[in-house]
Amino acid sequence: MNHTVLTGDRPTGPLHLGHYFGTLANRVRLQDIHQMFVLVADYQVIIDRDLPGRIQANIDDLLLDYLAVGIDPGKVTIFQHSAIPELNQLLLPFLSLVSVAELQRNPTVKDEIAHSSQSAVSGLMFTYPVHQAADILFCKGTLVPVGKDQLPHVEVTRLVARRFNERYGPVFPVPEAMMGDAPLLHGLDGGKMSKSRGNAITLKASEDETAALIRGARTDADRHITYDPESRPEVANLLTLAGLCLGRAPEEIAEEIGYGGAARLKGMLTEAVNEFLRPIRKRRSEVDLAEARQVLREGNARARERAVRTLEEVRQAMGF
Amino acid sequence: MNHTVLTGDRPTGPLHLGHYFGTLANRVRLQDIHQMFVLVADYQVIIDRDLPGRIQANIDDLLLDYLAVGIDPGKVTIFQHSAIPELNQLLLPFLSLVSVAELQRNPTVKDEIAHSSQSAVSGLMFTYPVHQAADILFCKGTLVPVGKDQLPHVEVTRLVARRFNERYGPVFPVPEAMMGDAPLLHGLDGGKMSKSRGNAITLKASEDETAALIRGARTDADRHITYDPESRPEVANLLTLAGLCLGRAPEEIAEEIGYGGAARLKGMLTEAVNEFLRPIRKRRSEVDLAEARQVLREGNARARERAVRTLEEVRQAMGF
Repeated sequence: MNHTVLTGDRPTGPLHLGHYFGTLANRVRLQDIHQMFVLVADYQVIIDRDLPGRIQANIDDLLLDYLAVGIDPGKVTIFQHSAIPELNQLLLPFLSLVSVAELQRNPTVKDEIAHSSQSAVSGLMFTYPVHQAADILFCKGTLVPVGKDQLPHVEVTRLVARRFNERYGPVFPVPEAMMGDAPLLHGLDGGKMSKSRGNAITLKASEDETAALIRGARTDADRHITYDPESRPEVANLLTLAGLCLGRAPEEIAEEIGYGGAARLKGMLTEAVNEFLRPIRKRRSEVDLAEARQVLREGNARARERAVRTLEEVRQAMGF
Repeated sequence: MNHTVLTGDRPTGPLHLGHYFGTLANRVRLQDIHQMFVLVADYQVIIDRDLPGRIQANIDDLLLDYLAVGIDPGKVTIFQHSAIPELNQLLLPFLSLVSVAELQRNPTVKDEIAHSSQSAVSGLMFTYPVHQAADILFCKGTLVPVGKDQLPHVEVTRLVARRFNERYGPVFPVPEAMMGDAPLLHGLDGGKMSKSRGNAITLKASEDETAALIRGARTDADRHITYDPESRPEVANLLTLAGLCLGRAPEEIAEEIGYGGAARLKGMLTEAVNEFLRPIRKRRSEVDLAEARQVLREGNARARERAVRTLEEVRQAMGF
């Protein structure tokens, strides 16, 4: 079946290897098979209270990363939340289809709330799954690649689609979530990989920066390198990353290193990562920023056309 | 000072005398002094789960009523919620500025929830004050005529405007609420006036329908008519209505009727109402529906232009 795929990112900074193996590689694969929309969720960064002013730079970074990894604007519509007002108008009917109790129960919202630096939960964070329903359904998305923590959001989208169709007639597909099978990568300090923690290798980092980051990675005192995610999570994480870059099993790499210790592991990983990222970084340095921005403008125009059409159908179904 | 005034109605049916004396008369007065936007809040009727299909007929009724009472489309921008996607996009930043706790505390939302026929509170109802903030601020409204029950909503709008300006720079005025001084009219059965209860005289009712409605009004057994809102609320309400239509004090009318009883009171009221509404009903019958719809289309275009401009300022302020 031919799907319409909706994926995207919040423009909070340059993408890193966690993004690459978690979603970007998958997108590059899917773009040849399905119609794909990639959302630059610029409005959603308000949730994180990012300082204004950085947003444009972050969007630029995102665009360059997309083009560098091989997302093809001839096949994919890259668009920006804030450029599609019609998408946001879907919020009104959608909000009417979901109860406050259902929003309160959403585990991802609960989690976001628990981890939020904000003293109070904002209305935006609280209604986030409904915004995501609008993001997915404006283009009649049928397939949504997600991490595990995003699954409940897609459930809200499915609920909204079903209830809308029941009440007003069949307008929306009920989209499927697609869980990736990539192993979970942790940051170089063993924590959650995140550029703000400085524990992630960004796609755009230089080879020296990459080497320095890996040199500082947490390991353990055992010189015998083994792949044991349970009792040696930090070492296992570095082996996993090396395995992904080399297309090899982490156990095999561990065996090869043997008693070489963390130093040998880090040396090998540095080489593997830099080798792997070299063509991506080369392409990134060759992309013209003005052209990248033009890609976004054209994507915005296409996405907006789509949103206008969907909103028209919604209004018709609702009797406007 | 020259104000920008935002008022409006949900298109839930034809307007009645409660609307006329409560807000319409005031609008006709204000339109000569201030810039005015009148919102046909078509999306908000979703809150009440009105049946789809009736919406267009209700919008037509509203337009005809507006033009009949003398709202002048040369002075006033009449526009429709669903035609202005840019207005809804303001929701995202605005929702980020209000906490869930603040929404939960809103007494009008609490009240709507208590009186709702819905089994569960929808996300739309919960976030209603923020939608209203977008309605008011998209045109940089500075003055909002309200009933007492709407005051807390305007407080949310003021909060949103202040917080936006604090965080991103001065974009929005902090609007004032304007409480009307019209006496509160009850329905002909003594309850809240509402067309769905059949206790309201609509502007478009015929003279015979009006007479029949008043004939059925609740009064009491005391033939001596006196104006005593405390102990004789039904009789006082009819006297108030007669007073409004005749431009006289209800006490004076009561004295004139004296021992004439409810029959005399009703006869006099019927005549007063029909006399008062005659020119309005005449104008209403003369308005061409196609022209009325054209008024709305032109208003939509003007309002949308305004919304696009405001949204542009908002994006700039936020660093997009």
